Amino acid sequence: MQRTEIAKYGEFGLIKHLTEKFKIQNASTLKGVGDDAAVLDYKDKQLLITTDLLLEGVHFDLVYVPLRHLGYKAAVVNFSDIYAMNGQPKQITVSLGISKRFSVEDLEEIYAGIELACKVYGVDLIGGDTSASLTGLAISITCIGEAEKDKIVYRNGARENDLICVTGDLGSAYMGLQLLEREKIVFSANSEVQPDFADKDYILQRQLKPEARKDVIQALADKGIIPTSMMDISDGLSSELIHICTQSNVGCRVYEDKIPINYQAVVMAEELNMSIVTAALNGGEDYELLFTARIEDYEKILTLENVGIVGHITKPELGLNLVGREGEEISLKAQGWNSLK
Amino acid sequence: MQRTEIAKYGEFGLIKHLTEKFKIQNASTLKGVGDDAAVLDYKDKQLLITTDLLLEGVHFDLVYVPLRHLGYKAAVVNFSDIYAMNGQPKQITVSLGISKRFSVEDLEEIYAGIELACKVYGVDLIGGDTSASLTGLAISITCIGEAEKDKIVYRNGARENDLICVTGDLGSAYMGLQLLEREKIVFSANSEVQPDFADKDYILQRQLKPEARKDVIQALADKGIIPTSMMDISDGLSSELIHICTQSNVGCRVYEDKIPINYQAVVMAEELNMSIVTAALNGGEDYELLFTARIEDYEKILTLENVGIVGHITKPELGLNLVGREGEEISLKAQGWNSLK
Repeated sequence: MQRTEIAKYGEFGLIKHLTEKFKIQNASTLKGVGDDAAVLDYKDKQLLITTDLLLEGVHFDLVYVPLRHLGYKAAVVNFSDIYAMNGQPKQITVSLGISKRFSVEDLEEIYAGIELACKVYGVDLIGGDTSASLTGLAISITCIGEAEKDKIVYRNGARENDLICVTGDLGSAYMGLQLLEREKIVFSANSEVQPDFADKDYILQRQLKPEARKDVIQALADKGIIPTSMMDISDGLSSELIHICTQSNVGCRVYEDKIPINYQAVVMAEELNMSIVTAALNGGEDYELLFTARIEDYEKILTLENVGIVGHITKPELGLNLVGREGEEISLKAQGWNSLK
Repeated sequence: MQRTEIAKYGEFGLIKHLTEKFKIQNASTLKGVGDDAAVLDYKDKQLLITTDLLLEGVHFDLVYVPLRHLGYKAAVVNFSDIYAMNGQPKQITVSLGISKRFSVEDLEEIYAGIELACKVYGVDLIGGDTSASLTGLAISITCIGEAEKDKIVYRNGARENDLICVTGDLGSAYMGLQLLEREKIVFSANSEVQPDFADKDYILQRQLKPEARKDVIQALADKGIIPTSMMDISDGLSSELIHICTQSNVGCRVYEDKIPINYQAVVMAEELNMSIVTAALNGGEDYELLFTARIEDYEKILTLENVGIVGHITKPELGLNLVGREGEEISLKAQGWNSLK
């Protein structure tokens, strides 16, 4: 029998390959695979569904991730997918696969984190299960959200001349991860050395306890702005821009000096002799929003807090380009965190 | 820090313990944790949500489970949870965690099974993801179903004198598993011995490729019967009766000689020197329906195919009892398959 290595496809290609044969059979299924969340039609409201499976050693390392933070983050990254559709997360289900090394107290910690996230974001836990795992910890979360019929924002609505906007700052979560990895190595070599986390609280929080952009979704609604396309930045700006431009059949120009970067992340990158721009473009896990908006909304967007304009949408034949600080053009490539490699 | 072993709770106690602090915050959340599926209110229709996480070595053994059957079963057991609420499954999300030993063709096999299940049951695949696993295969499926407002059947509606009904037959899936385990041991000892599956096709199919009871749900609707309580039999009849009686605050009397058993399962049990009644009571994985119905529906129920009456609901103080072939009464205990032990 033929054997094709999974690496040949990459995660997104693989899902497309595996799911393209499935036919939609129900009138209530408005949008299936291919966006941050699926969309179901229930009269005046539409439902959004998103799901995530997190596995120990792949998506998280319990050496430095506290269980409570893990629970919080596992929930919040799902909420982020619902906000990225311009919806409101409402319910989650949580399934855990746990090995014998976990105690009830450990699970209480995970659930305490999930509970806090549910409280902060107004989401109900509605089900799930807990079963044995022969190996590490597995967390599967599904989130259901609501949105008004005409306000759902997909990835495929970007049009020429639209503004490209990014919330918060990028690259900090990745620099937080680099710091944790460094201190883990130092600690393995000499367990008496205490980790050096001075003035690193922001990048650590960005990695360990990220927040979803509920505030910006609210602000957009308050100002009457409906983005033309939107997604959350889980794999890095490059990868997400490629998704939006490919699905919208457009090109883009993004300016390096407009990409929002935090000072702590810059310092950390210098310490580690890394490029903070590369971290912002390809690091991932920031859970900020990337969206495009009509040029007519320019003035309104300037009044939004925590939102920056980083470029604009072009004709597809112009390609996807990053304009560097010296004016040089660099073609954007997806080097996002690919867990299948 | 205190350390409580997870075995102290068991799966259901553990979920209750972990989730009891969560407060419901959204009007659309009608029913959260504690039934086969959660219920969301969307005007004339209500939504049902159920989710399952299956882990290699715990829930399935790839030595004898073909990947295509695994995909089929993983989907069908979720549909079964929706039928058990008297709903219709409509959409599923599928997340896979896969290690390097799996090829694209392997995943195609899994998805081919899921696709077949979706086609047979009229369900849409709407999302999910695929990521690396450092160990075995992990499959997380969430299913969304619909039901009419007044027709959802919970576990807590059984009343004194209600009839207790069971679909199909019980214990066959468990005997199929015992057969597969036996042949696996024989094969490990001498790989030239071919497995002996003669006249065992039914019990193998029950274990490897179970079906959900769409037909009975349709028949109940056609006859105008709304069960007073219902659940699917995934952990064995004893365990499920205990759920229904506890949640409904009633007792029950079930007659051993009424429990539906298949001939192949009886033969297999004799071969292995096991009790087929124990298998039916505690074996699990049959995915048949257990439901209670009003005594007024007795005549209608007699006309249903694949439905048998096995006993009746009593006052709670009479307890949960199995009446043996000699008239002896045995107290029902949950010895269902507990993956956490």
